Amino acid sequence: MDEKDLIEKEIKANTVYSGHIVNLRNDDVLLPNGVKSKREYVEHPGGATILAFDNEGNILLERQFRYPYREVIWEIPAGKLEKGEDPMEAAKRELEEETGMVAGKIEKLGLIYPSPGYTNEHLYIYLATDLKPTRQHLDENEFLSIVKMPFEKAVDMVMNGEIKDSKTCYAILKYAIMKK
Amino acid sequence: MDEKDLIEKEIKANTVYSGHIVNLRNDDVLLPNGVKSKREYVEHPGGATILAFDNEGNILLERQFRYPYREVIWEIPAGKLEKGEDPMEAAKRELEEETGMVAGKIEKLGLIYPSPGYTNEHLYIYLATDLKPTRQHLDENEFLSIVKMPFEKAVDMVMNGEIKDSKTCYAILKYAIMKK
Repeated sequence: MDEKDLIEKEIKANTVYSGHIVNLRNDDVLLPNGVKSKREYVEHPGGATILAFDNEGNILLERQFRYPYREVIWEIPAGKLEKGEDPMEAAKRELEEETGMVAGKIEKLGLIYPSPGYTNEHLYIYLATDLKPTRQHLDENEFLSIVKMPFEKAVDMVMNGEIKDSKTCYAILKYAIMKK
Repeated sequence: MDEKDLIEKEIKANTVYSGHIVNLRNDDVLLPNGVKSKREYVEHPGGATILAFDNEGNILLERQFRYPYREVIWEIPAGKLEKGEDPMEAAKRELEEETGMVAGKIEKLGLIYPSPGYTNEHLYIYLATDLKPTRQHLDENEFLSIVKMPFEKAVDMVMNGEIKDSKTCYAILKYAIMKK
C-alpha cells in the first residue's frame, strides 16, 4: 500500500472545549477513501522528563498521587512545557523544582507519543548525570516525595509491573539496553 | 513523607465535555494541604495491544496515520476496550481484525499508564505466538498497512527513535530484556 493512501486531511479544526491544561478538538476530516468523518483528540502543550543518576548509581524516582487513577504511582521527574520552552530546558527546570538537583550533564534519551489515537502530546526524554544539590521548590498544587533507588532495582520494578508510567518504563528499559 | 499526605480527594465530579471516544472532566478536589482545587483529565475506556510473533520470529507492525500528529507512525496492533470487554479478548479481537491473524497462544506482558497527569487510560499489553491466518476485517474508518519485521530490527528502531509510540516501545523493550 502506498503510504499516501493512509493520510487523512483536515477539513475544519473544531475546538470543542478549551481547558486549563488541554483542549479537546473534534475536527472534520477527509479520510483516505474520500469519506468525510470526525477525529476527536486532545491538544497538549508537550512535556519533558528526565532520568537522573546520582554519583552512587541511584536514579531519582517520585511517588506522586495521580488523580485520574486515584493512585500514588512511581514516575521520574517530569512536567509540561511552558509556551515556547525548549524541552531540554524544561527537563532541567523540572528536575530542579521537583528534586532540588541540578544536572551537570544532560543528553537526549528519546521522544515518545504516549497515546497517539487521541492525544498529540510530544514527550521528550533526557538523561542527567553529575547531579549537584540546590533546593526543591514545588509548584503550589504539587505534592510528591522523592525516592533514590539503585538502577537495577528500578529495572526489576518495570519488569514485574510495579512501575507502570509509560515515560518512566521507556527511559529505564531503553537505558538498560543502551548500557549493556 | 507518609503516603496518605499525597492523596487528593474528589469533592465533586464534573464532566465538562462528553465526546465520542473520551470525556473531559474538571473535578473539584481537596488537595493534601486542605486547599480546594481543580483536576482536569480525560476519561478513556481503556485499551489493549498485542506484540505478535509469527513462526519465523517476525513481529507484526502497523503503519497508521495518526491524525493528532498528522503523521504515519509505527505501532503494534491495538484498540479500545468495548464496554465490559476483557482486555485479553480485546487484544485477540484487534489482532484478528487488523492483521487477519489468530493467536494460538496469548499471555500478559504488562499494563501501562500512558500519560498519568491527564488521562486515566489503562493500556493492557499482551504477547501472542503460534499465529494462524484468518481474514483481516478493518473498521469502516480504519486505514493501515501491516509490516512483518524481524524482532531485532524492531528493537533497533526503538533504540534509534524511529518507533515512538509508547505501548510499542514498552512491549518491544520489555520483551527484549525478558528473552535475554
